[in-house]
Amino acid sequence: MLKEEIAGRIKRAQVAINEANIDMLFIVGRENLIYFTGSTQMECMALVIPRKGEATAVTLWLDVEYLRENSAIPHVKGYFFPAQNLVSKTIEVMKGYGFTKPRIGFEKYFVEFGVYEGLRKAFPEEDFVNATELIYRLRSVKSPHEIELIRRASEMACKGMEAAVRAVKPGVTELEVLAEAEYAMLKAGSGGSSFRMQVTSGERALLTHPCASQKKLVAGEAVVIHLGATCEGYCSKMCRTVAMGNIPEEQAKTYQLLLEAQDRAIAALKPGVHAWEVDAAAREVVAEAGFEKHYLDFVGYGVGLRQSEFYPIIGKGRQETIEKDMVVDVLLPTVYKKGAGGPRVTDVIHVSQDGPRILTGYPRDLIIH
Amino acid sequence: MLKEEIAGRIKRAQVAINEANIDMLFIVGRENLIYFTGSTQMECMALVIPRKGEATAVTLWLDVEYLRENSAIPHVKGYFFPAQNLVSKTIEVMKGYGFTKPRIGFEKYFVEFGVYEGLRKAFPEEDFVNATELIYRLRSVKSPHEIELIRRASEMACKGMEAAVRAVKPGVTELEVLAEAEYAMLKAGSGGSSFRMQVTSGERALLTHPCASQKKLVAGEAVVIHLGATCEGYCSKMCRTVAMGNIPEEQAKTYQLLLEAQDRAIAALKPGVHAWEVDAAAREVVAEAGFEKHYLDFVGYGVGLRQSEFYPIIGKGRQETIEKDMVVDVLLPTVYKKGAGGPRVTDVIHVSQDGPRILTGYPRDLIIH
Repeated sequence: MLKEEIAGRIKRAQVAINEANIDMLFIVGRENLIYFTGSTQMECMALVIPRKGEATAVTLWLDVEYLRENSAIPHVKGYFFPAQNLVSKTIEVMKGYGFTKPRIGFEKYFVEFGVYEGLRKAFPEEDFVNATELIYRLRSVKSPHEIELIRRASEMACKGMEAAVRAVKPGVTELEVLAEAEYAMLKAGSGGSSFRMQVTSGERALLTHPCASQKKLVAGEAVVIHLGATCEGYCSKMCRTVAMGNIPEEQAKTYQLLLEAQDRAIAALKPGVHAWEVDAAAREVVAEAGFEKHYLDFVGYGVGLRQSEFYPIIGKGRQETIEKDMVVDVLLPTVYKKGAGGPRVTDVIHVSQDGPRILTGYPRDLIIH
Repeated sequence: MLKEEIAGRIKRAQVAINEANIDMLFIVGRENLIYFTGSTQMECMALVIPRKGEATAVTLWLDVEYLRENSAIPHVKGYFFPAQNLVSKTIEVMKGYGFTKPRIGFEKYFVEFGVYEGLRKAFPEEDFVNATELIYRLRSVKSPHEIELIRRASEMACKGMEAAVRAVKPGVTELEVLAEAEYAMLKAGSGGSSFRMQVTSGERALLTHPCASQKKLVAGEAVVIHLGATCEGYCSKMCRTVAMGNIPEEQAKTYQLLLEAQDRAIAALKPGVHAWEVDAAAREVVAEAGFEKHYLDFVGYGVGLRQSEFYPIIGKGRQETIEKDMVVDVLLPTVYKKGAGGPRVTDVIHVSQDGPRILTGYPRDLIIH
C-alpha cells in the first residue's frame, strides 16, 4: 500500500519535471528522501528520478540490502567509501540514463559545495535548475496516510504542551520546561522534533530563532512555548503562551489580538482561496491595532515532512491556491515590538473538504498561571 | 573573556585564509556561526570574514540589536525580508570590502542552491574555493573553555546512559528507551542532541544511520544505545551496548574485541602521533580477529560544535597530526557482519598534556541485563 503510494509520488514527480523540461531530479535532502523512498532510516544517500523510466537510489554499500527490502525504489546502487563516494557513484548513475547534457533539478537545501563541484565538473552547469518549489508543490497536498501521521504527531505535541504548561513556574529554567515537554512527547511515540524547540521568556521571545536556554523563568513574564513532534518523519508543531502571574497588559492584549487574527485566518482556510486572502484575513486585525509595521509579511507555511514547507506560503500577495488536503500552520509571527510583543499562538490546520480542521487540539486561550 | 576568545578565532581564521590565498570566508552554517560569534541563538544569518580588516555579520533586521549586544562581531547589517534577502545583503557587504573578483571560501555544508546561484551571478565562480577543511582545522584544537563545555556535555550524556540502561527491558520500544535518556539529559541541562540518536536492537544495529523506532526490544538481543548531549552548542556522545539476556556468543565476543581495539586506540592518542597510527592500533585488533573487511576505513573524528568534525579524521593512511587539546571520539564502527556485528562502544577523549582523558566516564563493559 505505502509502496504504491510512493510509486505514485515518483510518477507525479515525473509528470511535473516533464512539464518543467527537467531531465532528472537530484535528491539528497532527508525530507525528500523520506518522501520518495518511504524510509526514515537513511542518510548518505541520493536519489535520481529521470523524466522517463525508473528511479535509482545510491547509498553506502552497507545499507543497500536494507533499502532494497524497505523501499519502493527499483534500483539501488552501493558505493564503497572512501574509494568511491556518493557524488562519483551518482554521476555514474546519471550518465547511465544516457543524458549527455542533462537539465538537472536541484533541491534548494543541503547541496554541499563538494557535491555541487563534482556535478559541475561532470555536466554543463548552465543546465542546472532550481527545482525547490516544484518539489514543495508536489508535497503540498497530502494523502490520507500523510494526514493521519501529522494528526498523530499533533496529538503528541498536545501531550508535550500539557507537560510544559505544568512545568512553568518561577525559578525553573527554560530548558527544564523543555525537558518535561520532550519527555512527554517521546513517551507518546514522537521521533523527536524536526527543529530546535523554543521556550523563551521575557524579552527573549522577540528573537526570531531562539531556542530554550538556561535562563530562569521570572514571575510577571510571558513564557512562549513552541513545540514540535514527529511521527514517521511527519511533523507537527504548536505554540502557546503562558502568563506567569501579572504580565504587562499590553502583552496580554497582543495575545488576544493574535488569537483573533488566527481565528480569522483559520476561518479563511478553504479550498480555492488564494494564500494572500488567508494572510489578509489575519493581517487586517493586526493592522487595525496599528501593529502592521511590527509584523512579518507572512503568517504561515505548509506542514509535512518539514515543519515549514515553502509551498504554500501564506503571505502578502502570494498567489498560490489553497487546495483540499493541504496542511498548514497559522500564525507564525508575534508582534515584534518591545513591551507589547512576544506572545504567540500557532496551530496546524488540515484544509479538509468539510472546512478547516485544527489538528493541534489544545485550548488556545492565554494560559494564566 | 569569551569576546576576546572569539576575536582570537577570527584573527586565526584571517591568518589561515591569507596563507591559503582566500580573500574572504563566507559562513552560513550553524556550527561555524556559533564558533565565530559565540551565540547559539542565531539563524538566517551570514558572516563575512575578510582576509584583512573586520568581519561583518548579516542577519534578519529583527535580530540585529541582539547580535550587536551578544557577539564580538564589530559590524552587523540587517536585511528586510522579503524585499531584501540574506544573499542580496551579503553580496552588498562583500562588494563593500572592495574586492571585484574575490576568492570566496565556502564551508562544505548547507550551501543552498539559491544562495550559491546568487553569489555566482555576482562574482566569477572560478574563484570560489572549498574552505571546509581549513575551517575544521581551525576548530580542531580546543580552548580550555571549549573543553569544559564538552566535559559538561559528557556528564549529561552519562546521565542519559544511566537512564537508558535502566529502561532497557523486553517489550519496551526503542523510542521509550530514548525518551528516558533524553529526559535525563535535558534535566541535566543539555540543549538536545546534535544528531538523531540511536537506540537499535537486533539486526537494526547493522544500519549505518538508523534512529530509534517503534520496534520493541526482544530478549536475547543486543541493544545499541548511541546518545548525544550539547552544552552551549558543544557536543558529546557516547555509545554502549546492553545484552538483554543471552545474546549470541559471537556478538558478545565482538564487543570484547571492539573494547580491546578501543583501549589500544585511546592509549595511542598522544600529541605528535599521526591519525593513521591511532587507527592502526585499533585496526590491528580487528584484523587479527579476521574482521577487517567488515570494518570501516576510519575509527573516529574530532568532536566539538559538531558531533563528528572532519578534522582530524582518525582513519587508514590519514596524515594529520594529533595535537594537544584536540577532542576526538573512538571507536565509531561496529563489525558490519550479520550474526557477529552490531555491538559498539564509543567515547569522547580529550588529548591532554597528561595523556588521553576519557570525558564520557561511564563504565565501558558490555552491560548485561
